[in-house]
Amino acid sequence: MTDDVTIRMLSKRKLVEPVLIEGLPGVGNVGKLAADHMVDVLDSEHIASIYSIYLPPQVTVADDGVAKMISHELHVIRQKEGARKGKDLLVLTGDFQAISPEGQYILSQRTMDLANELGVTMVYTLGGYGLGKRIETPRVIGAVNDIELKEEMEGAGVAFQPGEPGAGIVGASGLLLGMASLVSVPAVCLMGETHGIIVDPKAARAVLEVLVKTLDLTIDITDLDEKAAEMEEIQDQIDSMNDQIERSERESTGYIR
Amino acid sequence: MTDDVTIRMLSKRKLVEPVLIEGLPGVGNVGKLAADHMVDVLDSEHIASIYSIYLPPQVTVADDGVAKMISHELHVIRQKEGARKGKDLLVLTGDFQAISPEGQYILSQRTMDLANELGVTMVYTLGGYGLGKRIETPRVIGAVNDIELKEEMEGAGVAFQPGEPGAGIVGASGLLLGMASLVSVPAVCLMGETHGIIVDPKAARAVLEVLVKTLDLTIDITDLDEKAAEMEEIQDQIDSMNDQIERSERESTGYIR
Amino acid sequence: MTDDVTIRMLSKRKLVEPVLIEGLPGVGNVGKLAADHMVDVLDSEHIASIYSIYLPPQVTVADDGVAKMISHELHVIRQKEGARKGKDLLVLTGDFQAISPEGQYILSQRTMDLANELGVTMVYTLGGYGLGKRIETPRVIGAVNDIELKEEMEGAGVAFQPGEPGAGIVGASGLLLGMASLVSVPAVCLMGETHGIIVDPKAARAVLEVLVKTLDLTIDITDLDEKAAEMEEIQDQIDSMNDQIERSERESTGYIR
Amino acid sequence: MTDDVTIRMLSKRKLVEPVLIEGLPGVGNVGKLAADHMVDVLDSEHIASIYSIYLPPQVTVADDGVAKMISHELHVIRQKEGARKGKDLLVLTGDFQAISPEGQYILSQRTMDLANELGVTMVYTLGGYGLGKRIETPRVIGAVNDIELKEEMEGAGVAFQPGEPGAGIVGASGLLLGMASLVSVPAVCLMGETHGIIVDPKAARAVLEVLVKTLDLTIDITDLDEKAAEMEEIQDQIDSMNDQIERSERESTGYIR
Repeated sequence: MTDDVTIRMLSKRKLVEPVLIEGLPGVGNVGKLAADHMVDVLDSEHIASIYSIYLPPQVTVADDGVAKMISHELHVIRQKEGARKGKDLLVLTGDFQAISPEGQYILSQRTMDLANELGVTMVYTLGGYGLGKRIETPRVIGAVNDIELKEEMEGAGVAFQPGEPGAGIVGASGLLLGMASLVSVPAVCLMGETHGIIVDPKAARAVLEVLVKTLDLTIDITDLDEKAAEMEEIQDQIDSMNDQIERSERESTGYIR
Repeated sequence: MTDDVTIRMLSKRKLVEPVLIEGLPGVGNVGKLAADHMVDVLDSEHIASIYSIYLPPQVTVADDGVAKMISHELHVIRQKEGARKGKDLLVLTGDFQAISPEGQYILSQRTMDLANELGVTMVYTLGGYGLGKRIETPRVIGAVNDIELKEEMEGAGVAFQPGEPGAGIVGASGLLLGMASLVSVPAVCLMGETHGIIVDPKAARAVLEVLVKTLDLTIDITDLDEKAAEMEEIQDQIDSMNDQIERSERESTGYIR
Repeated sequence: MTDDVTIRMLSKRKLVEPVLIEGLPGVGNVGKLAADHMVDVLDSEHIASIYSIYLPPQVTVADDGVAKMISHELHVIRQKEGARKGKDLLVLTGDFQAISPEGQYILSQRTMDLANELGVTMVYTLGGYGLGKRIETPRVIGAVNDIELKEEMEGAGVAFQPGEPGAGIVGASGLLLGMASLVSVPAVCLMGETHGIIVDPKAARAVLEVLVKTLDLTIDITDLDEKAAEMEEIQDQIDSMNDQIERSERESTGYIR
Repeated sequence: MTDDVTIRMLSKRKLVEPVLIEGLPGVGNVGKLAADHMVDVLDSEHIASIYSIYLPPQVTVADDGVAKMISHELHVIRQKEGARKGKDLLVLTGDFQAISPEGQYILSQRTMDLANELGVTMVYTLGGYGLGKRIETPRVIGAVNDIELKEEMEGAGVAFQPGEPGAGIVGASGLLLGMASLVSVPAVCLMGETHGIIVDPKAARAVLEVLVKTLDLTIDITDLDEKAAEMEEIQDQIDSMNDQIERSERESTGYIR
């Protein structure tokens, strides 16, 4: 690890028409939840670790007391049925994004270079689209790097609406989308609508449903549904607390601020 | 895109005595408004994209859902009449400036190097000069990298006054001006007087008028005038709201703070 | 010193099965106190200075008016008795850690590279584990880079508990631990429980006791005990002042905030 | 200017036993005032400009409207009489220091490298020592990079006192002092005692007096004395205003905060 980005390949496995699926932390942790879920419930192999001086300068410590360098991880999942039977998914996960703007660019670029070497034919970046309010039925908002992808994505349930996302797409989800177009690889960013301040398994589920349709996947989402139910309860409690605070403030001051 | 600055040439067009006109975002967005207007209303060709790890780590998403890497863009406009008939303008536009000080230097330097390779004979950098108050008839304040340019610029209506701009010129407009002198290319910075807190098409118009005179250009500025009228209305509303707030504060407290 | 990290070797001494002990500033300065104490009371030789552009851009000035570049220092201590008789300790000390995240990585990496060249067989990184409250009898919390080390460390009195340290280990103590595992060198981080806001010789003593057991060392800790007694007094005074402030606040307001 | 530091030599003049005198901005601008004064009143030649991406990304604009890149400047002054007759002073001036910690190191290192190439035999770095209060007769506090320099400096009126400066010496004055010792060049930092919040020509005069003695210089300091008198008046006014504010606060509240 003498360079600013160091890639450790853990497998020489030959990939078959892989598509890259990025799920790093972000708004509502939607992308990370979705990608981690795929790695957890599908038959996956961890094939590479990406270390970088642009990640936070620390180690994580697992419950057994074993420390691990911060890294991004690439996992391969071979699809076992459906239209893409025998073809591969390459899933990018991690606990942190790069912490400096330059680091964001450099780390995404090295990841894109590696994806290219591994023969990636399409990139899906996953994220959340923060609306600052509770969402009952989250839509999945899309952005593409080639207008020809829109129709197919709309067919898989993705919404495209002028002005969304207005502020652009920040971080790895945005940069991989943009960088893919510089090397002529089609890419789409799938953003599940979410409040934005708490982790949102329901939005992650919505994003996964798009992947299930477009990649003809079979994924057990029981676990994600359970997490979503838990978060709904927590959200109910937060809402009820906020209501109470508001009511008591109104009563004590006699007016609405 | 493996370097810190990557230039993609989109055309091998041979330029004729080009002058570089820089219009990146800044005070009142004056320079950007002026440069974007030239690219929009004159017959322009997009000849290069400049990508950099020093720009914000994100993509923009257009209304059709297509994402684009943040970049600086070079456009060529061939002058069709007047004294510079058949000669080229090279217009530098973009939505962002570099976000770190070092990035500002490096990106400006690469741009200056490219301008030099393209045979640029003169540099005009455009910007706003923030005065913190509403300006009825904005002057254009100038700074040159060679004292011999002053007389010509004064002839085109540019004001030079000791102590202005007192704080120097920050960002690409300043650096390209300074760097041009290191490679013996004459350069001037044209700064339209502006409030500084809202975008100012009127100041942009004033800056364009200087370019029209000095480069013997013909530009339709109807569109810019319309935008200026809109901004005047918004400014009127802001002023009237501020007046009201001030009045009500005075009344409720009984004294002037 | 033309590179970002410059190592000056001050001795060509051949080391015998050295273990690296890192004690740079951190929570409660626990690691630094412990490592400095070893260098002070044992027979040590200063064998290398590590300079870096990632350390603070300043010099320190000693009481005699002589200025010194900020650096990390490597000292060798040959063990004179016990199970490791004739073998070496390599102790890393310094007054500052790198000030940027990238600098943390780069400086730790160069230090790990040097340790590797010097034949280091095991790494101990020392630090504090901040609990935000006064600790009567500090435990030493551990993290390892190889699960096989746990049993031995537990035998030397180190506590391993799921969820501790929950936030991971930041800085050189964490990075050297993680980087060691990338080059297959066993490593443990020893964290003495401490309040976290004042320097804590008692926690440093606890950490040293683990090293004494695991490395079969003999160290006079009288000096550290004296410092610990002084700090206890200071802490008593702070506690008593806080009590007074709390009491007077309660009396003047009539209620407990 | 394609590197992070670019040196433009403006003269091939051969220097005779030059000593480097650094006077960049800092506490009370003491060092800058002293160095600028030497360049102004003695017969000086500007022999080099040092440009860097670590300086602020802007240009300064002179009263005649001509913009200039931010830079550090090296000037040569040949001593015309006294013990060092025929020998050179190399004076480093500038309007800004590097703005990032890494930049501070890199810029100082390149300057030290250049000084070495030019045959510098001794380094004097000039600065202020901020005491946070008005100083009637400023002493000059010293720090050396070799204890053997102390006696000579004390002979020239420099004070050395344990614990001063307690916080070390930050920036170019500190780094050049430290880096000189890495290449075995003797160096001293001369710090004029000053309030620290306003520019202090009196402290600069005190620093110059040390240089006059130690380098057997003849300098007209009339101009610096006049500036010092002006600053004294301004300081008197500030003090009297502060007194008034304090008095009126005391009267209106009835108690001393």
